[in-house]
Amino acid sequence: MNDRFLRACRREPVDRTPVWFMRQAGRYMKEYLEVRKRHSILDVCKTPELSTEVTLQPIERFSLDAAIIFADILLPLEAMGLNLEFIESKGPVFHNPVRSDADVERLIPVDGESFGYAGAAIAMTRKALANRVPLIGFAGAPFTLASYAIEGGSSRDYRLTKDMMFARPDLWHALLTKLSNGVIEYLQVQIHAGAQAIQLFDSWVGCLSPDDYEEYVLPHTQRIFTALASAGVPKIYFGTGTATLLPLMRKTGCDVMGLDWRVRLDEAWATIGYDLAVQGNLDPLVLGAPVKEIEKRVRKILQQANGRDGHIFNLGHGILPHIPVDAVEATIDIVHQFSTREVEV
Amino acid sequence: MNDRFLRACRREPVDRTPVWFMRQAGRYMKEYLEVRKRHSILDVCKTPELSTEVTLQPIERFSLDAAIIFADILLPLEAMGLNLEFIESKGPVFHNPVRSDADVERLIPVDGESFGYAGAAIAMTRKALANRVPLIGFAGAPFTLASYAIEGGSSRDYRLTKDMMFARPDLWHALLTKLSNGVIEYLQVQIHAGAQAIQLFDSWVGCLSPDDYEEYVLPHTQRIFTALASAGVPKIYFGTGTATLLPLMRKTGCDVMGLDWRVRLDEAWATIGYDLAVQGNLDPLVLGAPVKEIEKRVRKILQQANGRDGHIFNLGHGILPHIPVDAVEATIDIVHQFSTREVEV
Repeated sequence: MNDRFLRACRREPVDRTPVWFMRQAGRYMKEYLEVRKRHSILDVCKTPELSTEVTLQPIERFSLDAAIIFADILLPLEAMGLNLEFIESKGPVFHNPVRSDADVERLIPVDGESFGYAGAAIAMTRKALANRVPLIGFAGAPFTLASYAIEGGSSRDYRLTKDMMFARPDLWHALLTKLSNGVIEYLQVQIHAGAQAIQLFDSWVGCLSPDDYEEYVLPHTQRIFTALASAGVPKIYFGTGTATLLPLMRKTGCDVMGLDWRVRLDEAWATIGYDLAVQGNLDPLVLGAPVKEIEKRVRKILQQANGRDGHIFNLGHGILPHIPVDAVEATIDIVHQFSTREVEV
Repeated sequence: MNDRFLRACRREPVDRTPVWFMRQAGRYMKEYLEVRKRHSILDVCKTPELSTEVTLQPIERFSLDAAIIFADILLPLEAMGLNLEFIESKGPVFHNPVRSDADVERLIPVDGESFGYAGAAIAMTRKALANRVPLIGFAGAPFTLASYAIEGGSSRDYRLTKDMMFARPDLWHALLTKLSNGVIEYLQVQIHAGAQAIQLFDSWVGCLSPDDYEEYVLPHTQRIFTALASAGVPKIYFGTGTATLLPLMRKTGCDVMGLDWRVRLDEAWATIGYDLAVQGNLDPLVLGAPVKEIEKRVRKILQQANGRDGHIFNLGHGILPHIPVDAVEATIDIVHQFSTREVEV
């Protein structure tokens, strides 16, 4: 097996920097759009055959070093009784948002059986991958899940989320405890079914001050990683706009820190500490630039990583739908070309 | 005159921490909504009597330490030939965005006469203020103006803006040079008419990596502050999500750095250096929380400022429309109560 990705997660030497992309299975690929003509996002997530097919599309096409199961960060919320709908122009929408004591009360406790489809999708994908590359499982982190649950969808300022956090800390913590329980179950199912690493997406946590992160989020994220520690798979923690949160985020117990492009990789790694691996951090919009410009920027990131063990190349957020497939291919080649090194493995 | 604000800008001792709020004249006040029933935003900006009236509304009502002229950060773009419309649900929209060489070419060069209304509004407001508190003038910074001009309005990912920056750096710099010329003219008009400090709003610059800020933005912002240096008024530079940009932003030549809530004020000030004043940095959504919670958080910021000369209290961004007037009043009182100190002035 190509185990560069797993070795880098464990900060072991690799012959070249492993690379995968968040949302590497997605709308920028015509193969994906073809499947989506006939099936909704939720259908694909919940039908192991479709999830497997879509997960493998970028693996068949590109020289990637890891696969990530096709799923959605919001599935734990859906299992807990929120009506999730994806609306083309707006993204995910919940028609019954969580805003009151009664709303938190009515959340359905989940267990492993709630996520049977997820386990089946992981198992089937592992089989289809046939050990070509490792498979990553994932979930939304409790803050980011809460923001969707409370706002009823995406948000620009997270007003209702912070209203609950600031005015009803008791209710906030009750909600995050329930969400964390769901996330733990969901990730455990994935790990038991064969996920070889997991990533927790705290995509919108960067809207918080460090003090608020520490008080209202850290204990919950920490509990999740602690609960999964014995499983022995690498745990990646990712968010955007997290420059000032990184020292706190490392306290969660993650093994790999996902970085967005707003931080310099070398400075962020020094801040976090070299006993963690890092993942990132090209601005996703750079993939819309000419290849020369992509190359310049990829090389700058590789120079900042400085050949140190424990760097996984990725974007600072997901691949955007308008990005040309050729740019994705070129980026992977550039990473491999400029990071190849002699190493005894 | 209450000169606490100007003294703090110059890092001189004050008897209590001065406080003003971005968007302190705005939709959260019924007096403002009353005016807006009869007049559009652009009407208010361009009619000195109305601009004066609205600017003074929060000054009459609250114990604020500075006034800021009612205007819009986008007025320089409008003067340069972009058709600006404010649409209730979407915010500002430009129907003729700037995306090509020809678009940049057709931007109308502006001079002082383009902003006659702005000078008249400042002069009239100064008169109406009768030296009660100082008056701040302002403009959008070139990056933030460019983002609106290119996207044709607000944006979530600034895709078209970065496309131009990454693929056409020559065109990008030509555009930012023209925008900076307009901003310089606009701010000079305000200073000549009596603005006692100016603030440059780079609200969305936090979407950039530090390297991109340094290469594509810093030279232009620097040129603006250099051109205004001889005027002798304090120059404030504000953005959101700027944690990793602050060391570069201080190179612009600003006197006061605006901070958002994502940084701790003490850490940010230490990073920037104590030879600059700082302004901030309460999360605007805290004003929607119970007064006890507001007090706790205001005091934390004051403790971080630690009585050091050169702190101006503000929010980390503008007051939001849903915020109760009572919360604004309470916040001002709390700042004054917990920052009063003995000082010889």
